[in-house]
Amino acid sequence: MTAADESGPLERTWRDVTPPAARRMLAAATAAFAERGYHATTTRDIAARAGMSPAAVYIHYRSKEELLFHISRIGHAASLDLLTSVTGEDPVERMSAAVAAFASWHAEHHTTARVVQYELGALTPDHLAEVGALRRRIEATVRGMLEDGVATGAFEVPDVRGATLAVLSLCVDVARWYRPGGRRTPAAVGALHADLVRRMLGA
Amino acid sequence: MTAADESGPLERTWRDVTPPAARRMLAAATAAFAERGYHATTTRDIAARAGMSPAAVYIHYRSKEELLFHISRIGHAASLDLLTSVTGEDPVERMSAAVAAFASWHAEHHTTARVVQYELGALTPDHLAEVGALRRRIEATVRGMLEDGVATGAFEVPDVRGATLAVLSLCVDVARWYRPGGRRTPAAVGALHADLVRRMLGA
Repeated sequence: MTAADESGPLERTWRDVTPPAARRMLAAATAAFAERGYHATTTRDIAARAGMSPAAVYIHYRSKEELLFHISRIGHAASLDLLTSVTGEDPVERMSAAVAAFASWHAEHHTTARVVQYELGALTPDHLAEVGALRRRIEATVRGMLEDGVATGAFEVPDVRGATLAVLSLCVDVARWYRPGGRRTPAAVGALHADLVRRMLGA
Repeated sequence: MTAADESGPLERTWRDVTPPAARRMLAAATAAFAERGYHATTTRDIAARAGMSPAAVYIHYRSKEELLFHISRIGHAASLDLLTSVTGEDPVERMSAAVAAFASWHAEHHTTARVVQYELGALTPDHLAEVGALRRRIEATVRGMLEDGVATGAFEVPDVRGATLAVLSLCVDVARWYRPGGRRTPAAVGALHADLVRRMLGA
């Protein structure tokens, strides 16, 4: 990672992490995990990317797994925050806004999202439980929007749990296929997905 | 991997690979890559899982990357084969059958699918080009079904390319979230996705 990368979305994800050295390490760890995978990355690799000594990593994080846990926790918290900050009376508009925000976040933050989604298996049981609680809140938030729309007759959905899974799946998978500079901007990906989800839910 | 695993879907994927030693290595490499990631896996790890000597790997495959390439090629070819073997006159029925087969394949073969989808970046440029050609054929097959349905008025889709992307995305992402022994069987996942895609395409 170069200094230039730090002005991008990757760096914005960690803006509330202090001190700056800890923030630089999370950004460096995310880039390293995304490039080579968690198990192939050493704390030495992360320190080198962050421009620090290997010992400096341990001032802020007990282990490589703790770095992954913080990345995962912050990434999931950002997703939950996006979804819960959607307001409005109309269930269709709320779902559209939530899907547009969630899908475009997964385009813009595809590097972080890949680490967050694909490396869950490397977390300790305690850390996985904590991240699992955030995941259940994310799912409950989307399911709640769907149930609201079913209650008012705005959505027509035979399997609410299955449809919730599909809405989340469609948005999360953006992180896998999205390439910066491709045919669609993150905002266009968001708009496409909001439209497809409206159709899928019979709005 | 134990001997018992070899009777499962992982082994069925490689059934046309000969000799049996080469087949065992592909199955072992897939399990190892899925568990620890491509870059953290050594040919020694793969040999140990396959119950062979490290030197035996090189009799069949020039490198670890060549193992990944064969996994990726066979996985993509299996997907393409599934999609092109769907027949029938009615575009809605054909799309439903294709999505059900594709989604349930990604549930049943989630281990192979994860390696195939998440480790593309580790392929050499030549191998990536070959796999890329298969990926374009997979996309063209689904797009063709969609266009057929739009032509007959069976589907109502404003952005055919975007909808094709979403149909594939929804099915591929099954490999990420699917857990054996969970709430839904692979067949139920297929049926759920076929129904949601029909709705999404305005069938």
